[in-house]
Amino acid sequence: MSDREQERAAIGQLVDSVMESWNCHRMADHNAAFAADADFINVVGMHWRGREEIAARHVELHATIFRDSHMRLLELSQRFLAPVVALAHIHWAMTGAQGVPGWDVTTERRGRLTWVLVKQQDGWRIAAAHNTDILPVAMPRPADAARAA
Amino acid sequence: MSDREQERAAIGQLVDSVMESWNCHRMADHNAAFAADADFINVVGMHWRGREEIAARHVELHATIFRDSHMRLLELSQRFLAPVVALAHIHWAMTGAQGVPGWDVTTERRGRLTWVLVKQQDGWRIAAAHNTDILPVAMPRPADAARAA
Repeated sequence: MSDREQERAAIGQLVDSVMESWNCHRMADHNAAFAADADFINVVGMHWRGREEIAARHVELHATIFRDSHMRLLELSQRFLAPVVALAHIHWAMTGAQGVPGWDVTTERRGRLTWVLVKQQDGWRIAAAHNTDILPVAMPRPADAARAA
Repeated sequence: MSDREQERAAIGQLVDSVMESWNCHRMADHNAAFAADADFINVVGMHWRGREEIAARHVELHATIFRDSHMRLLELSQRFLAPVVALAHIHWAMTGAQGVPGWDVTTERRGRLTWVLVKQQDGWRIAAAHNTDILPVAMPRPADAARAA
């Protein structure tokens, strides 16, 4: 493999590892994927600053609404912005989440996660994550705006 | 100013310029802020790929639900991941949007936008944007999960 292919494979492995640790609720492994100064914006717009805060909130969520949740990867795309900076888009599906606004435990949520990754001495880490639920809405047509006005 | 301070100022100006072109509905100016291969994930989880698609969707939105919308900056934070890669978090407020799920035209929306920026020959451009509405929900407590189960 070329160096670039090796980096892509390493990022793919980090995605798999984060999914697996989410599904096994091994939060120490999950949280170790983040850089110390990482930012995380969750699906309801909370902004967590730094690995400690990201870790603490994920521990709370996996003791509550995500304790029986299971996430799976639908699609991963990635590209490099610099030798040590990469961008990944993760299209995901989740079952078993409780109490997420707009979802119940019987519904499969779907969403999109943007990761900005930086290569550190011990490998790739998430510098910034931003997550959004996919809502079943269509692009507005001009007639919609006329009705809404 | 140091080089780094100049770069920070340039990114701040790009944020101001995108806000102003949004508010004046000058979509050509707005859309020129994006790199040709930019990604955009909007508040309902749509993933637009490339400046052309991002531009087309923004033109449609500013002809419909955002035609009377006004956005303002509440807080900007930024940091550098490499000499030519920066990360910006934009905390924004918007009035006048019509037909956004969960909002009506009398309500001020608030949200958070992550931008990944790359420095190109003609200046900083948005390589990836991800936007989320802030929903008025609190972190779950253990008792919430027990009730939901």
